[in-house]
Amino acid sequence: MDIKDYVLELARGAREASRGLAALSTEEKNTGLEAMARALEEKIADIRSANEQDVEKGKKAGLSSALVDRLTLTEARFEKMVDGVRAIIELPDPVGEVMREWKRPNGLVISKVRVPLGVICMIYESRPNVTVDASSLCLKSGNAAILRGGKEALATNRALASVMSGALEESDVPGSAVCMIETPDRSAVDELLKLDEYIDVVIPRGGEGLIRAVVDKSRIPVIKHYRGNCHVYIDGAADLDMAKEIIVNAKCQRPGVCNAMETLLVHRGIAEKLLPDVARLLLERNVELRGCPATLKIVGEAGPARESDWREEYLDLILAVRVVEGLDEAIEHIEEYGSRHSDAIVTEDEAAAQAFLKRVDSATVFWNCSTRFSDGGEFGFGAEIGISTDKIHARGPMALEELTTYKYIVRGSGQVRS
Amino acid sequence: MDIKDYVLELARGAREASRGLAALSTEEKNTGLEAMARALEEKIADIRSANEQDVEKGKKAGLSSALVDRLTLTEARFEKMVDGVRAIIELPDPVGEVMREWKRPNGLVISKVRVPLGVICMIYESRPNVTVDASSLCLKSGNAAILRGGKEALATNRALASVMSGALEESDVPGSAVCMIETPDRSAVDELLKLDEYIDVVIPRGGEGLIRAVVDKSRIPVIKHYRGNCHVYIDGAADLDMAKEIIVNAKCQRPGVCNAMETLLVHRGIAEKLLPDVARLLLERNVELRGCPATLKIVGEAGPARESDWREEYLDLILAVRVVEGLDEAIEHIEEYGSRHSDAIVTEDEAAAQAFLKRVDSATVFWNCSTRFSDGGEFGFGAEIGISTDKIHARGPMALEELTTYKYIVRGSGQVRS
Repeated sequence: MDIKDYVLELARGAREASRGLAALSTEEKNTGLEAMARALEEKIADIRSANEQDVEKGKKAGLSSALVDRLTLTEARFEKMVDGVRAIIELPDPVGEVMREWKRPNGLVISKVRVPLGVICMIYESRPNVTVDASSLCLKSGNAAILRGGKEALATNRALASVMSGALEESDVPGSAVCMIETPDRSAVDELLKLDEYIDVVIPRGGEGLIRAVVDKSRIPVIKHYRGNCHVYIDGAADLDMAKEIIVNAKCQRPGVCNAMETLLVHRGIAEKLLPDVARLLLERNVELRGCPATLKIVGEAGPARESDWREEYLDLILAVRVVEGLDEAIEHIEEYGSRHSDAIVTEDEAAAQAFLKRVDSATVFWNCSTRFSDGGEFGFGAEIGISTDKIHARGPMALEELTTYKYIVRGSGQVRS
Repeated sequence: MDIKDYVLELARGAREASRGLAALSTEEKNTGLEAMARALEEKIADIRSANEQDVEKGKKAGLSSALVDRLTLTEARFEKMVDGVRAIIELPDPVGEVMREWKRPNGLVISKVRVPLGVICMIYESRPNVTVDASSLCLKSGNAAILRGGKEALATNRALASVMSGALEESDVPGSAVCMIETPDRSAVDELLKLDEYIDVVIPRGGEGLIRAVVDKSRIPVIKHYRGNCHVYIDGAADLDMAKEIIVNAKCQRPGVCNAMETLLVHRGIAEKLLPDVARLLLERNVELRGCPATLKIVGEAGPARESDWREEYLDLILAVRVVEGLDEAIEHIEEYGSRHSDAIVTEDEAAAQAFLKRVDSATVFWNCSTRFSDGGEFGFGAEIGISTDKIHARGPMALEELTTYKYIVRGSGQVRS
């Protein structure tokens, strides 16, 4: 079978499965999820041996140690992955929720009801746990999942998907609820992205290059997660001890993720008082500082920031620092260089905070806390399929509700339009 | 200036205006809308004379009389258009609504707040009233609008946009809240659709060809309104008098619109009793009938339906009729041939109705009423910018709320992540 036919058949199967999925009760879906979790546990040996193949192959192909690490399904990660499936069983089912209901003067009763999106295509890189996370979230929200993982994890992903589909076949859930693209051929993705008749949305998870390539090719709507160039602005009226704690946390607690701070903006009025302490705390933690001219005058250890530093998502122990005249300049800086992901203000001045929260056009805006809270788990969603930097459909942390849409149900008693 | 620079400058202006718009109060936006309405009334002579130019040109160019009619801004249409602006003043402002608010165990208070999308690009065909409708809806929802109307209406659209922008300049609303693409050059649209940095969403309104062309080219998310191939299924347990009224209304009340019925599905058990009366009522109204073999046996006047008829959006006094074994076959038919727009069941059997409403995957599903109610006005939204056949972001009738997104506002007291 050629790639085009292979992908088409798979997408048709997913569409067919999505019809069955939409009609399942919460209990039936949860039974399917428990069957998946149990089967994964039972087949741990097969799955880990498939993973060892991928890891060996990756090492031979010269993958970086960071990539090999991402790829490796240790026993602890395996357990965490299966726990994740069981955590999703505990979450409320979004499907069927009546979001709104009203009666029209002509007697029609209109209900806006939450329903699954249908078929969701996930395109991701080398972490094999995404295969299980995405399948579970899609299943709980009543969607069929088409999965396309990184080629480095192909054997692991195949093993995971086949165990999950097999477990579902023995429950009431259609096995094609989880469909893995089992060829590393790149043209499979190109073909997939044309199938707007069968696939409702594409969610790429990975670097910006992957996401842009998907957007350029896709005829299907794409929910994007581009970059997190996150800012913390320390206002003139900030509590400086609080500011230091937030700065250290936002930069150092986990620098490699999208909600870590990349640029610190400091009000001129407090810069001389705050920056030396901040510099010491960050340098102790091996953070490289790149400052504007005003910062360089205060912090001797900092190197000069170039224009490109303001745009950079370092994902590393590097921080750009800029002294600003005040709130307006901070907001303008964020507007000009930011990525509309997560930005924070630290201040005791409520009016300044309200202005910042209103005017900064980011998915999440924070007042007096770390940007690291931009996260589905920290929001209390119980899970996360990604953080959208889009404005359409879903913005910020995405979980079960964001994998649904709605339909209108209109009940009448013979009404016609005049 | 070349087209690329022209479009880029315009999009940048719209983005800039969108920041100001997001910060406006409801009162400021309403004052802007009233200024627009008044200016349109004052400049009616200029606008109608520009429209006469377009109409003359269109006639010379051999436009069909239907197109010339669409293009013509009669006095009555003009008044209706201005009344539409004032009706939008009366609608509630969706911006700022706290959609949800909750407190986390660590004390963080998270609010999900409705905000404008930003910059909305409307691409549409020859009706000049869309220029005013879209501008007003975008302004009320705090969005800047980039407008690209049909080339046949260029002089009219220019006049409308210039009057509206001028009026806004004199209020507190940035004049670039309404930006008209004033060149008929097609490459302007191609350039526009690349500007995902400045434009948040594209809403094309027009034929399927226009929409597909936009989707193929756009790097910006597109909210689509493809086709309305709407079905009415008359169940075996239907009230036959009600069924007849609904059939006549759904087909004949306004056959040229997307929520009119295109295919009638009739349960075999009542076909012989119902169809002769239905045929008589429809033939009296000059409806051409195209039936399946079972229909042809009952209705001598019907011609045979071909496979393609089941897929057709006639937008005309033509109806495809099929006799089905029952609910399952009706749902399968809709799944196979429908466009997921608006579909209805007529029945007194509640279980059958519930199954239909649940299983038919359309933006709006109806029980015992006409499909013609799939409409923003009829839903009580007070306005309509289109009817989405997408599942992402907005589904079914779209009004002010659907022109917004949300952001999360998180308020803390120094929380950091551990």
